[in-house]
Amino acid sequence: MKKIKLGMIGGGLGAFIGDAHRRASRICNDFEFAGGVFDADYGKSKEFAKLEGIAPERCYESVELMIKGELARKADDRIEAVAIVTPNYLHFPFAKMLLENKFHVMCEKPMTMTVKEAEELEELVGKNKLTFALTHTYTGYPMVRQMREMVSSGMLGTIQRIDAQYYQGWVNSIIHGADSRITGVWRFDPSLSGVSSCMGDIGVHAFNLIEYTTGLEIKQVLSDLSSIKEGFRLDLDGTVMLRFDKGLKGVIRSCQVATGEENNLTIAVYGSKASIKWGQENPNYLYMLTDSDPVKVLKPAHGYNSDFAEKSHTMPCGHPEGIYEAVANIYKGMAKSIRGEKFKSGEFPTVHDGVRGMKFIHAVVNSNKNGNTWIKL
Amino acid sequence: MKKIKLGMIGGGLGAFIGDAHRRASRICNDFEFAGGVFDADYGKSKEFAKLEGIAPERCYESVELMIKGELARKADDRIEAVAIVTPNYLHFPFAKMLLENKFHVMCEKPMTMTVKEAEELEELVGKNKLTFALTHTYTGYPMVRQMREMVSSGMLGTIQRIDAQYYQGWVNSIIHGADSRITGVWRFDPSLSGVSSCMGDIGVHAFNLIEYTTGLEIKQVLSDLSSIKEGFRLDLDGTVMLRFDKGLKGVIRSCQVATGEENNLTIAVYGSKASIKWGQENPNYLYMLTDSDPVKVLKPAHGYNSDFAEKSHTMPCGHPEGIYEAVANIYKGMAKSIRGEKFKSGEFPTVHDGVRGMKFIHAVVNSNKNGNTWIKL
Amino acid sequence: MKKIKLGMIGGGLGAFIGDAHRRASRICNDFEFAGGVFDADYGKSKEFAKLEGIAPERCYESVELMIKGELARKADDRIEAVAIVTPNYLHFPFAKMLLENKFHVMCEKPMTMTVKEAEELEELVGKNKLTFALTHTYTGYPMVRQMREMVSSGMLGTIQRIDAQYYQGWVNSIIHGADSRITGVWRFDPSLSGVSSCMGDIGVHAFNLIEYTTGLEIKQVLSDLSSIKEGFRLDLDGTVMLRFDKGLKGVIRSCQVATGEENNLTIAVYGSKASIKWGQENPNYLYMLTDSDPVKVLKPAHGYNSDFAEKSHTMPCGHPEGIYEAVANIYKGMAKSIRGEKFKSGEFPTVHDGVRGMKFIHAVVNSNKNGNTWIKL
Amino acid sequence: MKKIKLGMIGGGLGAFIGDAHRRASRICNDFEFAGGVFDADYGKSKEFAKLEGIAPERCYESVELMIKGELARKADDRIEAVAIVTPNYLHFPFAKMLLENKFHVMCEKPMTMTVKEAEELEELVGKNKLTFALTHTYTGYPMVRQMREMVSSGMLGTIQRIDAQYYQGWVNSIIHGADSRITGVWRFDPSLSGVSSCMGDIGVHAFNLIEYTTGLEIKQVLSDLSSIKEGFRLDLDGTVMLRFDKGLKGVIRSCQVATGEENNLTIAVYGSKASIKWGQENPNYLYMLTDSDPVKVLKPAHGYNSDFAEKSHTMPCGHPEGIYEAVANIYKGMAKSIRGEKFKSGEFPTVHDGVRGMKFIHAVVNSNKNGNTWIKL
Repeated sequence: MKKIKLGMIGGGLGAFIGDAHRRASRICNDFEFAGGVFDADYGKSKEFAKLEGIAPERCYESVELMIKGELARKADDRIEAVAIVTPNYLHFPFAKMLLENKFHVMCEKPMTMTVKEAEELEELVGKNKLTFALTHTYTGYPMVRQMREMVSSGMLGTIQRIDAQYYQGWVNSIIHGADSRITGVWRFDPSLSGVSSCMGDIGVHAFNLIEYTTGLEIKQVLSDLSSIKEGFRLDLDGTVMLRFDKGLKGVIRSCQVATGEENNLTIAVYGSKASIKWGQENPNYLYMLTDSDPVKVLKPAHGYNSDFAEKSHTMPCGHPEGIYEAVANIYKGMAKSIRGEKFKSGEFPTVHDGVRGMKFIHAVVNSNKNGNTWIKL
Repeated sequence: MKKIKLGMIGGGLGAFIGDAHRRASRICNDFEFAGGVFDADYGKSKEFAKLEGIAPERCYESVELMIKGELARKADDRIEAVAIVTPNYLHFPFAKMLLENKFHVMCEKPMTMTVKEAEELEELVGKNKLTFALTHTYTGYPMVRQMREMVSSGMLGTIQRIDAQYYQGWVNSIIHGADSRITGVWRFDPSLSGVSSCMGDIGVHAFNLIEYTTGLEIKQVLSDLSSIKEGFRLDLDGTVMLRFDKGLKGVIRSCQVATGEENNLTIAVYGSKASIKWGQENPNYLYMLTDSDPVKVLKPAHGYNSDFAEKSHTMPCGHPEGIYEAVANIYKGMAKSIRGEKFKSGEFPTVHDGVRGMKFIHAVVNSNKNGNTWIKL
Repeated sequence: MKKIKLGMIGGGLGAFIGDAHRRASRICNDFEFAGGVFDADYGKSKEFAKLEGIAPERCYESVELMIKGELARKADDRIEAVAIVTPNYLHFPFAKMLLENKFHVMCEKPMTMTVKEAEELEELVGKNKLTFALTHTYTGYPMVRQMREMVSSGMLGTIQRIDAQYYQGWVNSIIHGADSRITGVWRFDPSLSGVSSCMGDIGVHAFNLIEYTTGLEIKQVLSDLSSIKEGFRLDLDGTVMLRFDKGLKGVIRSCQVATGEENNLTIAVYGSKASIKWGQENPNYLYMLTDSDPVKVLKPAHGYNSDFAEKSHTMPCGHPEGIYEAVANIYKGMAKSIRGEKFKSGEFPTVHDGVRGMKFIHAVVNSNKNGNTWIKL
Repeated sequence: MKKIKLGMIGGGLGAFIGDAHRRASRICNDFEFAGGVFDADYGKSKEFAKLEGIAPERCYESVELMIKGELARKADDRIEAVAIVTPNYLHFPFAKMLLENKFHVMCEKPMTMTVKEAEELEELVGKNKLTFALTHTYTGYPMVRQMREMVSSGMLGTIQRIDAQYYQGWVNSIIHGADSRITGVWRFDPSLSGVSSCMGDIGVHAFNLIEYTTGLEIKQVLSDLSSIKEGFRLDLDGTVMLRFDKGLKGVIRSCQVATGEENNLTIAVYGSKASIKWGQENPNYLYMLTDSDPVKVLKPAHGYNSDFAEKSHTMPCGHPEGIYEAVANIYKGMAKSIRGEKFKSGEFPTVHDGVRGMKFIHAVVNSNKNGNTWIKL
């Protein structure tokens, strides 16, 4: 099958996240990395293009030139989808330009800086009938998909409590190091990163994971955030109380200075009949609990899983796949959508998930500002 | 060494918690179970006394008679300490009577129904120079004590976040069963159990564990509670935001309808230099995390532990001790105190811990009632 | 109920194992520690007796005197059962004397020095209709008993492979320390300890655990042992191939110099329909595996367990009991037997288990000596 | 950088292992899948080539034609390396042909049917100065490489015991199903698969893992194998005693009918100063044990790891990579070798590892045949 030509904005030399996208797209095997704007510095961008074997004429100096250049090509030789892996404040302008020019977009999260921007992108995607995918990476794991299917099947009964956590420690050594390191990190500059660090960068993944696995919408939040170090301008830690419809409550806890934590994203959904727990660091284990039976440990590549989970894993049981394969699953879903193939809701996070995420981030920040009061999403 | 005669109020036939106290006191080996008031029904009480080999004259019809009877004995033949293992609303009146008559008390938690009662007991204990121990059982575990010592040593640096959880599922099958079961459970009747179910029964353990292991006081709470089932009069679930001094924040999450959870009490204390995590269901494992080193797993019976932790464990490494041994450690601390031996702060939870616990429970309930606002303890 | 008076040989000041027996017997609550011969040094024995509150006249200078002294008492004031917790070479002579004088015996393992001695004890027990229990401690764990019941129910189908391990590391620091420490340890002196260190001390537990949980007899062994350090006279490490009836094979691996291992006894029984795995360091978790279903994790205090397992655990689910409770369960079984109450096969390891163990130890040592050939038990 | 053109023999429609090779080679990004002989049935081969986007002229009818066709191309357009993913009996003839014609080879294991064949390939590789890689997949895991570096650093002291296990359960449902399934599986036909099933397919991985991580050679083996089901012609289960130089002993246990086991390959290396344990199903966790310190849990993406381990992992800590990335690491090492870049011993398993593996398999089978005697490798 013909591969979809993939462009990239950002992700040049030394950029971890761009490399992750390229690896995932290669695993998925529906894409061909064809060009892009890899660095604000055109020289570095060209250096990178050479190393990657990108045709020199497809290493563009700006997004505008890339759009122009690709539109000038014949349709079957054109970059059709573009991955945006820049600092946060650039997601919106580039996504907007791309969508207006009929390119499909794979965008890093948080999707935009404001809710309004997010809604504008959603409208554009709808109007132009394009595919827009957002890297809520963790939705690509087979057992997360299995969890979604299990909840959706009703086997948990009425959901009674939801508890999600996202703890990392990496910012700790930065805030306790020299100040210059803080100012050097774009994530800690509100004008580049947005209104939130901890909630915008990782809390929103926990939020998305809840909505993804349960199919429920969070209606209100009440938050208490902390910036830990005096003078630090963004949140590095926070607790968010959640309210859903029908009296359901829950909590998201998130921290970027939980010293020693690596990437500890977990979710527990407690139902009246059964409960399910999952953690990102051991993504191939899904725990199901009931009042009466032994705890069940579900793993990929077994007949007891849903079709959706099984199609998201290719190795036999006991051969652990990891996060690249999760991202590859999202690229695969995006490819199906671009090609007009049938796909399942949940195969990739959409622009609507991006709008939801922005609403969450802003509501959380506002609740904290307003003296820890309930804010509607 | 001569054993301390131990009386008991409650804990007769079929009472699990009374049996637990007796086992623990036997393990500790400083006590001799000598008499008490084992059941509101005197016949049943006598039946129990016979089975246990209690002298018939020491199976009393009432607490008043027990006090009178024991005071009539010679000092060296007298019950010196009494364990109160009744429903919650009886803790205070019995404890008060006992303290006024110079008996040492081991009391189940929550200590009283109100903060005022708790403070009254604290005053009495101080005035009469008695030993009062409270069954915050989990403080008896060796690795909890090790955690306390590690935090106290300063090796964690500045504490940046505290997260505790206490999830159980056992109430789930009750609330989704016949209504009669709910009315039959004294824990669910506010007049017998107090203002809270989930927070009063288990949330307060998480609270105590935080204050015990860190030596910090929680200053304010903001809670959101849920009674899950319509018509249910007490909380069965809740999230409590915590504020300590110096900007430190944290969270307690607690639930009694987390289907399938057994007794999942956990605590994580994140410091600027290191973090520590512990969970009750695998109590012999303590995890220490840093930015730069491999995760360390500490276990009992090793030279790297503090003296306090090591003295709280008697088996060689790899021979798991459990919860009875934890309670026995608390009985051991109480015995030292009664005997006037030197003991360490933290060897048993005191009446002051009980006062703190009652303040917590009431503050949490009030915060929820007041529309999720901050309440001082 | 009247308590059974328990005597002890060995287990004086600083003796860990004697203390463990006393704690376990107190937890079980059917015994009263009444006297014994606690130390070869009578002075130390008396010092210990005083500390423990043992009546001075029941602190005997020798086993002969203890037997004489106790037999002189009225039946209902007499020590009925005696725990032998001496170095190995003394087990047999003391057990024999006690049995000949109609005392019940709780004996540390390995039961004797030779198979012949073991068989002599078995004959004596049978002839005198006494209760003889052996501390294969691990058979007292609830989930080991659950495993036994599950295998016995046939739910595993035909057993296809059995794999047991017992790894410890504590001897490592001894053999790499000063020589004097080796010579000071009675366990390393064949004349005091027997023909084997690793297999006699811990390998035999793995052997017993296999026979206990499966109800199968090991028929032949082929071993390869290692004494690790030049000049060391006993095995510290070994692999033992096992053959059962009907072509079933298995393996025991055991080591006392597995640096850093604590008390890592595990067993896996693989059947044609299902498999079960258990490990001593987390004794409350039993894993059941099948071809088609999620892994099941069984824990104590649940309705899905057998009656035998459930009666071996007293706390509610999630409240971990440990090794003292396991030993207490064995004491409880012994008490039932002494009292003539109904008990289940498997409630305590018997003299026959001791005979089997001695046959195993000697067969393993002989196989190694004979150039790693098959030896029948 | 220019990609190395990769050919493949076998691995057509529905072939899991071929797909795994292609994914891994794409992750590694040094190869371009260019052609091959994908199926014995040329029609199916062509169908597969079309799906994969392989140029039709590079979908060959036979290995001979592929060699001829590729040699006819200009050097810079030629397939340079060929992955052999056929049933075992075809590895040797195809590898030989390829090597004789100067193609580099990536070969599935077991490398050949006989030791002689293996040695013939080793000679050819040496003579023709080619790169030959063998898919001992597990050597590609970062923490396995870390283990190798740690052992090699001497930090374990003298190695005292080695214990490896490889348990799977997948054959269980086959042997207890209809006979036709057994005859249909080429792995169970000695003429297609070789002299061993369990040892040849998985036991040899455990063997390789031991030699890879410790740098030690196994000198002698004594085995006891079992074919479990009457009439089954190959081993499905076995224990192998190991002897190394200097008195070191160890064991490999392997089983394909360990019901419910997925892919449970583990290794433990016990040294006089420290020990290391690793398991394939949670490949990102490496456990280091000592006599005196807490257990250390090493994970990828940390400064405490060796350079070799760190270069074998690309994601930040806590983002689990899996088995595809492990295979990709091996492809990466092969690419370096083909390109004449500097690489480290251990970056990919070599033809010599294949010779060692064949010696192991044959020695194990012979030991079992000879009545469980020691056989030299």
